[in-house]
Amino acid sequence: MSLPTWLNLKIKSPQYGYKPTSRIIPASVPSKLNLSYTQHSECPNNLCPPADQNVAAFVFGDGSNSRLYPLTKRRSESALPIAGNYRLIDAVVSNCINSNIKKIYALTQFNSASLNSHLSRAYSSARIGNEALVDVIAACQGPEGKGWFQGTADAIRRCLWVLEEYPIVDFLVLPGYHLYKMDFQELLKVHCNNRADITVAVLSTRRDKDIELSTFQVNSNNQVISFKDNPEMRVANLDVSQDKFIGMDIYVVNKDAMIKLLTEYHPMANDFRREVVPGAISLGMNVYAHKFSGYWEDMRSIEAYYQANMESIKNTNKAYSLYDKDSPLYTLPRHLPPTQITDAAITDSVIGDGCFLNRCKIRGTVVGMRTRVGDGAIIEDSVIMGSDTYQNSRAEEDMHIPIGIGEGSQIRKTIIDKNVRIGKNVKILNKENVQECNNEANGYIITGGIVVILKGAIIPDGSIL
Amino acid sequence: MSLPTWLNLKIKSPQYGYKPTSRIIPASVPSKLNLSYTQHSECPNNLCPPADQNVAAFVFGDGSNSRLYPLTKRRSESALPIAGNYRLIDAVVSNCINSNIKKIYALTQFNSASLNSHLSRAYSSARIGNEALVDVIAACQGPEGKGWFQGTADAIRRCLWVLEEYPIVDFLVLPGYHLYKMDFQELLKVHCNNRADITVAVLSTRRDKDIELSTFQVNSNNQVISFKDNPEMRVANLDVSQDKFIGMDIYVVNKDAMIKLLTEYHPMANDFRREVVPGAISLGMNVYAHKFSGYWEDMRSIEAYYQANMESIKNTNKAYSLYDKDSPLYTLPRHLPPTQITDAAITDSVIGDGCFLNRCKIRGTVVGMRTRVGDGAIIEDSVIMGSDTYQNSRAEEDMHIPIGIGEGSQIRKTIIDKNVRIGKNVKILNKENVQECNNEANGYIITGGIVVILKGAIIPDGSIL
Amino acid sequence: MSLPTWLNLKIKSPQYGYKPTSRIIPASVPSKLNLSYTQHSECPNNLCPPADQNVAAFVFGDGSNSRLYPLTKRRSESALPIAGNYRLIDAVVSNCINSNIKKIYALTQFNSASLNSHLSRAYSSARIGNEALVDVIAACQGPEGKGWFQGTADAIRRCLWVLEEYPIVDFLVLPGYHLYKMDFQELLKVHCNNRADITVAVLSTRRDKDIELSTFQVNSNNQVISFKDNPEMRVANLDVSQDKFIGMDIYVVNKDAMIKLLTEYHPMANDFRREVVPGAISLGMNVYAHKFSGYWEDMRSIEAYYQANMESIKNTNKAYSLYDKDSPLYTLPRHLPPTQITDAAITDSVIGDGCFLNRCKIRGTVVGMRTRVGDGAIIEDSVIMGSDTYQNSRAEEDMHIPIGIGEGSQIRKTIIDKNVRIGKNVKILNKENVQECNNEANGYIITGGIVVILKGAIIPDGSIL
Amino acid sequence: MSLPTWLNLKIKSPQYGYKPTSRIIPASVPSKLNLSYTQHSECPNNLCPPADQNVAAFVFGDGSNSRLYPLTKRRSESALPIAGNYRLIDAVVSNCINSNIKKIYALTQFNSASLNSHLSRAYSSARIGNEALVDVIAACQGPEGKGWFQGTADAIRRCLWVLEEYPIVDFLVLPGYHLYKMDFQELLKVHCNNRADITVAVLSTRRDKDIELSTFQVNSNNQVISFKDNPEMRVANLDVSQDKFIGMDIYVVNKDAMIKLLTEYHPMANDFRREVVPGAISLGMNVYAHKFSGYWEDMRSIEAYYQANMESIKNTNKAYSLYDKDSPLYTLPRHLPPTQITDAAITDSVIGDGCFLNRCKIRGTVVGMRTRVGDGAIIEDSVIMGSDTYQNSRAEEDMHIPIGIGEGSQIRKTIIDKNVRIGKNVKILNKENVQECNNEANGYIITGGIVVILKGAIIPDGSIL
Repeated sequence: MSLPTWLNLKIKSPQYGYKPTSRIIPASVPSKLNLSYTQHSECPNNLCPPADQNVAAFVFGDGSNSRLYPLTKRRSESALPIAGNYRLIDAVVSNCINSNIKKIYALTQFNSASLNSHLSRAYSSARIGNEALVDVIAACQGPEGKGWFQGTADAIRRCLWVLEEYPIVDFLVLPGYHLYKMDFQELLKVHCNNRADITVAVLSTRRDKDIELSTFQVNSNNQVISFKDNPEMRVANLDVSQDKFIGMDIYVVNKDAMIKLLTEYHPMANDFRREVVPGAISLGMNVYAHKFSGYWEDMRSIEAYYQANMESIKNTNKAYSLYDKDSPLYTLPRHLPPTQITDAAITDSVIGDGCFLNRCKIRGTVVGMRTRVGDGAIIEDSVIMGSDTYQNSRAEEDMHIPIGIGEGSQIRKTIIDKNVRIGKNVKILNKENVQECNNEANGYIITGGIVVILKGAIIPDGSIL
Repeated sequence: MSLPTWLNLKIKSPQYGYKPTSRIIPASVPSKLNLSYTQHSECPNNLCPPADQNVAAFVFGDGSNSRLYPLTKRRSESALPIAGNYRLIDAVVSNCINSNIKKIYALTQFNSASLNSHLSRAYSSARIGNEALVDVIAACQGPEGKGWFQGTADAIRRCLWVLEEYPIVDFLVLPGYHLYKMDFQELLKVHCNNRADITVAVLSTRRDKDIELSTFQVNSNNQVISFKDNPEMRVANLDVSQDKFIGMDIYVVNKDAMIKLLTEYHPMANDFRREVVPGAISLGMNVYAHKFSGYWEDMRSIEAYYQANMESIKNTNKAYSLYDKDSPLYTLPRHLPPTQITDAAITDSVIGDGCFLNRCKIRGTVVGMRTRVGDGAIIEDSVIMGSDTYQNSRAEEDMHIPIGIGEGSQIRKTIIDKNVRIGKNVKILNKENVQECNNEANGYIITGGIVVILKGAIIPDGSIL
Repeated sequence: MSLPTWLNLKIKSPQYGYKPTSRIIPASVPSKLNLSYTQHSECPNNLCPPADQNVAAFVFGDGSNSRLYPLTKRRSESALPIAGNYRLIDAVVSNCINSNIKKIYALTQFNSASLNSHLSRAYSSARIGNEALVDVIAACQGPEGKGWFQGTADAIRRCLWVLEEYPIVDFLVLPGYHLYKMDFQELLKVHCNNRADITVAVLSTRRDKDIELSTFQVNSNNQVISFKDNPEMRVANLDVSQDKFIGMDIYVVNKDAMIKLLTEYHPMANDFRREVVPGAISLGMNVYAHKFSGYWEDMRSIEAYYQANMESIKNTNKAYSLYDKDSPLYTLPRHLPPTQITDAAITDSVIGDGCFLNRCKIRGTVVGMRTRVGDGAIIEDSVIMGSDTYQNSRAEEDMHIPIGIGEGSQIRKTIIDKNVRIGKNVKILNKENVQECNNEANGYIITGGIVVILKGAIIPDGSIL
Repeated sequence: MSLPTWLNLKIKSPQYGYKPTSRIIPASVPSKLNLSYTQHSECPNNLCPPADQNVAAFVFGDGSNSRLYPLTKRRSESALPIAGNYRLIDAVVSNCINSNIKKIYALTQFNSASLNSHLSRAYSSARIGNEALVDVIAACQGPEGKGWFQGTADAIRRCLWVLEEYPIVDFLVLPGYHLYKMDFQELLKVHCNNRADITVAVLSTRRDKDIELSTFQVNSNNQVISFKDNPEMRVANLDVSQDKFIGMDIYVVNKDAMIKLLTEYHPMANDFRREVVPGAISLGMNVYAHKFSGYWEDMRSIEAYYQANMESIKNTNKAYSLYDKDSPLYTLPRHLPPTQITDAAITDSVIGDGCFLNRCKIRGTVVGMRTRVGDGAIIEDSVIMGSDTYQNSRAEEDMHIPIGIGEGSQIRKTIIDKNVRIGKNVKILNKENVQECNNEANGYIITGGIVVILKGAIIPDGSIL
């Protein structure tokens, strides 16, 4: 494996400088030596280097796609539509832009076509001087390996060479499918002031639903003392006492510490949270926690995704505002026509751009772009992702059932993926309150009592689900 | 005056090629000689040159701004918001793009800041290879003159030099503030097949409201025999008999004919319609008419502007569709949040991007971008242009009356310009059916029974208009 | 495997329309039935559908990277710099743009970071209306498979779903690493007029170097009768008689024929040239050849790549002009400073943007962007790729040997990859005329007598190669 | 005249808020009251507001165009090509970008077509979120006046309304045609720390050529005590003693101070330097000077423009580097081919992108984009602006003399404007050392011994100048 030149330079042979370095595994990894790779001289008098130049963010496009299947059948987790006009990844990219971080690398591997397309259109050429705001690094076969990314640590290790030429001081490691607003400048400042090797963002309060994740035990200075991963726990008996906090999978890592961890001390580690972070703690590196108290949703399940959409329709939502002038949510700019409404009673809903709403009732629903709703339809407590394109009338005739929701149909507590064709007088009410049901062959599943209609599915006239 | 090199090249002195040509006025203008400047060899077998390379469009940003005052107090006519998400000029630019015409010059002079800004953001860098889709040519002081553009003919004459290097065969001359969809390729094909010097688009049917414009008398081959301008007629006694058609102010002009007309035969002409076109007819040039039967609105008055907006809310509008996939209406792409609705009954309306609609009733209304409507408000038959920006809550406190429409207010048959602050329990109902009233000092006027609230006006709580 | 809806629609179950279709392998593949999938009605009177709407191009970013190793160690073949300012893929993308083809999909898998970055910055947002000129489809794990693309046919099969919503009539299949100028409109016209299922571009003349490729035997109507692949032949005893022509790996394929071939008749085929095309011929589909007589280089070896660069420096090059106004070569726009020359004698060379040439001699050389050449250096018959960035003077001090070519160094017949640091008084002359030598550990190899200095290599002062 | 709402809000009538305020001229302007409009609370502990949000720059596109006539015959001063690849305005816009100032307004009036086009393509849509980096405000007829801008103060006064909605704290007032690198952040910091109303950038050293400008007398705290304008002085007897410094026409002005000065105290002032600044001093406002010691050129004459180009060819130029990675010079990105050189000896020159240099000698010359130099040509000490486009060979035949410099021609100390056609064996050597000569009719003038060939001029074969 070829290490980045950062390392090469220190070990390069005197004769011909370029040397494909063999992997270095130190004979004995020093343990508890209180190693610190932060260069103290860079941070005098609490004067931290500007994020603009010295911080690069790695954003992971994929989580465990299976959690949100079948919504992730044709897209990666972070490409999921949210709140009518957005994709999940817009949240973390907007956090970066609003925090003045301008080197963003999106690492993609699963079902990446729509994510890559979204990122390159929305963010690739938005800056003066040929520098992209977001660079997509797709998993590929190359000198670092012929296989796919084996995990977050493996992915970062294989991408380090891309940053060789930049004067990076710290890396941000970020999931691309979480919904939250965080000022990363604050996080970086805490990291710099603590002269930390790694800083972990943790939740300041316990929430019942925060399971499955890791807990960090900290001392009074917020230094992390120990770490415990909880991969299998799905019950609420999590050991979160006063000095234990739930990790958000958001890390700041000093560049030199990152290189040492990934190439020397843990060259075989695949997962950043489960292997690298605990490794750094046990090596005695400076690992600190930064407490975060705002709204945060990690999209662990279809139910969580559904709830996050429901939150976005609340007028009084202080937690995650789509409308805040000072921390706007960016996305792919579009020039859709206005939404046209014939006669609708709409309650507690958000309506995306370019919809057609005929004589219908909509309550508690996220209505995505270009959604068409027929006369007499009633939609409640649902998430409609909308359509990728308008249909011409001729196409509609050919198809019999056009994209959208047909006349007289009733829909409740349903997630309707993109480009779905729901016929007339369809009832998707789940009257028997089925909790789980896999009927993918007929275009839908039910999970947690929520009906999910698959992308592009056709639900014939009069169907009852 | 310096003529374009097209002309220079033919008359350049043999010795030193560059010669600031003195104005050439032919001793005797040939009349009725059946002059034709179309090069016949370019159009063999009805094979016309591709518009992509050989056609340049001149779009006029300004009409007579006074017709739409006070809507045009701070913007030129073609920058007027229309149908919620658009500006008037988007219609003609979209016609050009959809007709594969890629050299578009917008000529601007009055109140041009917002028009120039819109055009340069929406269309300037949308193409590969550094060529803009739309170039703005602002009136300026230069070698062609120290004064403002004196009219459409003067403006074209002063801009011809810009096109020196391009192999233009025909010019399109277009007003920027008309609303219609036309396939210019058809128009150009007719022009080419007729080997015309000038082709005039005319309305195929008579409409009562089509006053003020010019009429063209044509023979059975659609060749124009005579022309009559009707500048002052406001009554419907227009002489439109079977062989007379109303001009739309849309022209295709052969390049050489244009140069001869503007620099040799009519070097003093200011107005294209009233001076140059009749001049060409009387000189015996080949002037043809092309009949157009679609929707067309020339925005001659605030009432016409109001009606055009009202048309856009009709679901069954076949005349001017905002949603046609094959002839989309382009505009500045935006990434606004979805519209958030608390509890609204909305009938026969279009709702722009990013609005906040609380417990309100909206009927027959165009609701523009970022519009905020308070609880209990009732809006009917109105045009709300919306807001240029979101306000932060602190700003709102400072202002007392935030941008938007306050709680309990009732509005009927009103045009509300951008960034207007309407307080609580305001009634704009024009109960006494005033037809004309100028109360600009208090932020509004009434014309034709339509109330117009001025841009940025503040209407205090409880006001009754 | 999920077939595209094109097919699904015809076979969808009557009840619930969406059905993950099981793979259909016809019980008996009809052979020699003279099958034709072209819809004749679409092509009456030689009136072919416009490419703008109905043609999508698949461009392969990777060939067999090993052919050009080590130049392809850190980039895919089509990302190779060529002629100073370009990447190889710019040639085929420019062919598409100049042929008015606007749906281009670049399929990438090997070492794709720099290719993806180049494409998304240069071409992703160059169009009005949110449509990219070039969409990158990176190999990824998804419902079509967990593995990498297994070949060109497999790659196309797994990407067909992306085009579901578009009214595609024909596909262009194109390698991304060939250098040539072709008007694809002509190719498409021939395809349409022949009502072909597949049209293959072939070389009209035999060239000694055209080995390794396939030959097509055609009849007097240019219909392909038989096909022979020549994977291993490296000698010039190729059987190219009067009726046999060498294939260029460029294909037009009717959409329905493509779907049938990839999903029904040859659902396991991985390679398009070796499996699908011969399969179509033996099935009796309409396969035609289109003869091409221009310059064409397929970059089969480092020597071929070297020669292609040498061609680009010829002033009289009619074969592949970089400067043709009517068929420009597009690339990532840059705003580099002008090249600064202290005192140089330059012969038969091209000089990229933003170089520093001190007192030096340069002959027969391609000098890439930002190249720095020190005093007294002599460079002949070489390809210098240049540098990705300028160095600040402080950085140079740290590095001892700055990027570029040091004072007094002599270089002949050498390819110098990006960001190479060649010290002072280095001689890379290959005086003993070594033909093959692998010294990658020291930063270079020799192949066919051409020295290749690896990307980022450091060649110390006084070295002699 | 309508004042900006900033002011309106303070004086709005209680009844109907919007009131076209009549011009307020205070009965007695307070003099020497030590007025200060800086809000002290904004600047505690030397913590200045970030420029990103709170500073807007006004850049003037035009100076006195007559100074550089005939180079400014068809373009405004700031659109003049400089150093091969740039326009003058790129220097000041790049200063703003590199200083993190993101609201830039270019005010244009004279010959603005090429400047507007350059700015809108290079800078209009370079940012995320629909905000342009540079907005062009063309002089236009509007409510602030029917006439052209009457001077710099008048131009600013008429543009203030554009900024109504932004939370501007300070304005930068900048000429668009000066060549220098300045970190405006430093200037703003000094301004903030001094709690100044106006801060003037002045030259820290006297230079003989700095005539025509204004001098500021300062005290030991750098506060300006008095001002003297020197409009007519063309001799070097300028009174620059130890406490007097030459102004650079660069100002930081507090927003409230600007509004008061332009609308209350000096509502009739047209010129910022000659009327408003002295007015502020005599009113007792806090006016400070900031000394600048770097390279600065104000392009006061064709000779100065010529010298600035000559500076750019110096390899050791520390004063104004085109190649500094940390303060890059931005411009319109282009994708031109590399420069092709047949056999050239080039000394102390810069060579722009995409040139053709045949067997020629070039010494001490700036060679602009797409320049073609024929066999045997010798060019010394000259500035060649280059060509806007490549010619196709057919076009060249038509023209006889193609764009560029013909075979065997000799050129010395000459500025060759764009698109000039110089024939074969032309000698432009000014052998008799003519100092001044106006031969515009034949395509050239001579000034200060420098020959200037006009844009698009044709110089026939064998001509001797």
